[in-house]
Amino acid sequence: MSFGFGGERFVATYRLAGDEAKAYAQAQDICLEQTVELPDALVTQQHIREHVLGRIENFARVDDQVYHARISYAVEIAANEITQLLNVLFGNISLKPGIRLEKFELPASMLEKFRGPRFGKTRLREIFKVPERPLLCTALKPLGLLARDIAELAYQFALGGVDIIKDDHGLAEQHTAEFNERVERCVQAVARANQATGGNSMYAPNITAPSGYEYGSALEAKRLGAGAVLLCPGIVGLSVMQMLANDADFDLPILAHPAFQGSFVTARENGISHFCLFGQLNRLAGADAAIFPNFGGRFSFSQDDCRAIVEGCNIEMGNVAPIFPTPAGGMSLERVPEMRAMYGRDVIFLIGAGLRSHSPDLVANCRYFREMVENV
Amino acid sequence: MSFGFGGERFVATYRLAGDEAKAYAQAQDICLEQTVELPDALVTQQHIREHVLGRIENFARVDDQVYHARISYAVEIAANEITQLLNVLFGNISLKPGIRLEKFELPASMLEKFRGPRFGKTRLREIFKVPERPLLCTALKPLGLLARDIAELAYQFALGGVDIIKDDHGLAEQHTAEFNERVERCVQAVARANQATGGNSMYAPNITAPSGYEYGSALEAKRLGAGAVLLCPGIVGLSVMQMLANDADFDLPILAHPAFQGSFVTARENGISHFCLFGQLNRLAGADAAIFPNFGGRFSFSQDDCRAIVEGCNIEMGNVAPIFPTPAGGMSLERVPEMRAMYGRDVIFLIGAGLRSHSPDLVANCRYFREMVENV
Repeated sequence: MSFGFGGERFVATYRLAGDEAKAYAQAQDICLEQTVELPDALVTQQHIREHVLGRIENFARVDDQVYHARISYAVEIAANEITQLLNVLFGNISLKPGIRLEKFELPASMLEKFRGPRFGKTRLREIFKVPERPLLCTALKPLGLLARDIAELAYQFALGGVDIIKDDHGLAEQHTAEFNERVERCVQAVARANQATGGNSMYAPNITAPSGYEYGSALEAKRLGAGAVLLCPGIVGLSVMQMLANDADFDLPILAHPAFQGSFVTARENGISHFCLFGQLNRLAGADAAIFPNFGGRFSFSQDDCRAIVEGCNIEMGNVAPIFPTPAGGMSLERVPEMRAMYGRDVIFLIGAGLRSHSPDLVANCRYFREMVENV
Repeated sequence: MSFGFGGERFVATYRLAGDEAKAYAQAQDICLEQTVELPDALVTQQHIREHVLGRIENFARVDDQVYHARISYAVEIAANEITQLLNVLFGNISLKPGIRLEKFELPASMLEKFRGPRFGKTRLREIFKVPERPLLCTALKPLGLLARDIAELAYQFALGGVDIIKDDHGLAEQHTAEFNERVERCVQAVARANQATGGNSMYAPNITAPSGYEYGSALEAKRLGAGAVLLCPGIVGLSVMQMLANDADFDLPILAHPAFQGSFVTARENGISHFCLFGQLNRLAGADAAIFPNFGGRFSFSQDDCRAIVEGCNIEMGNVAPIFPTPAGGMSLERVPEMRAMYGRDVIFLIGAGLRSHSPDLVANCRYFREMVENV
């Protein structure tokens, strides 16, 4: 009896720390822990042994005291739910040291169900009317500014030709600039600048909000004329992003912000790889752009970490479109050539404070930023 | 001008790794990073400097290369949103190594807004009619069983006197035991056992589900007669738990499961302390019981980690009621005396596989479990 299991499986690759015996035992443990959560001897039903248990497809040494195990799971145990998929990939074993989720491979049947980004790179370029060059992004801050002052900043950024002008991810429902007033004013300011320049800048408000309210904010952002939204999946859950990316009444691009996700990547031996967390998972859950801390900025990501994220944003995933890697965080205009060399043209460059400190003339700084990415 | 800031502040304590100069610089950086996200020189508005910037209230050495900084923030910047509170406490700095969030202290005005658990320890004891002894909990598994077989397990656990019979957190919408059928059958099975024993066992289904569906599952669980629910805040977000704990149409106790949260606590120098993550944050977000891996089981928590969680479940937090620490994970009945000695009576003991392997007679094992916690 197959008990309704069709035999199709998805695969996760785990990095396991330790000697070969320890790492192999850990791979065997994952097969139980992530599925039946029982000791092997207590799994007596034949269909569960055959279909439900995780299965080691491959186990190989990749470095001193480092092994990779490819473990497959029946597609049915994820039940086409992103929440249960996350649980199978890394739920309980997140609590066991020495295991890092490196990547996953889903069969077409699952990728079709999850769908991924609504737009992805190609359609985002169409929306922003930027066919070739890197896209430019900046952030409205600091928190504490009144809505009218935030809108004035947005106006200047748009006048200078920045494509995406996003809220700082800390702008929520603070009394100094409540969501509706902020969105209304910023949308108007950016439209006014676009009229002056003939450009196509867009405003992206932060819709990260308590459960239930993020959806209302998303629809309100669209109604008021925002061009995209910012969301922190580490705070609201990847599932909220997926819901928005698939909702028929909401059809704006989503920029994923990495707040609260750092603990998954700070330890090499635990957590989730940069490739998987910021690339694959963001993408599967419907982000159109993945913001992450650039190497050499005020965060600690290495150049290799950043390259891995770019790969995760672009690697073949069936119907799930590639998305824009969006390096950010403490970058200066002076570093744009180095970043262009590393990231090429298929990237969104997000520069916040660096756009303010270059010279006192914000509009001129933005134009300089734009020239730098156009003329390389 | 105060710009509407009242002067009230909340406090977070961070553990900082490094020598004194490095740790102090990191404390200063947190004050900027978690609020304005700009270099100090770019923060020109006086009201923002005075109210919005984080402020080091205290900085002290606690060990070799370890410092604690108490940093305060204006209550207004959290905007009474749990999502933005999480962001201020640990959003961007989760991406900076060497910083761990140890604990937080919120003024009464914030605690009243967040409310915390609907029930808490005292009211949970009333609901379960267990005035003094530790409560007993077990898990329905493995994933892959048909709903009728899961219900038969539930029946036997209830017949044996286990108070809370919860779904394994991996039971979602799999075809082998879909939510509605599973809940209906298990509720009926537990009711049948209660009739036989005169007891008060309750079934707690897993309502972890994609965004939007968790609320429907919660209401459905209540409608079908479940006594509590299980939720994984690490997967759906703490904010979903808070929404449920405050929703007028849903009024069941919530057991918080730690799946996907392990990466916050696997590195001593990064992430969030056990006390804060499993204790304070679960509680603030409305859990009535916090499940965590017991020391000496198949996970890696130490006895001190577990003690810290108990403290976080019980420490004074104004109107936010204390909740039940719920140690679990690879425990055997033989360890109950040791656990009683450590946890005392105000605890829920969650034993899964250990209840199956003690002897072939499941009902007898449960009765033995119950006797062990009653007669100490």
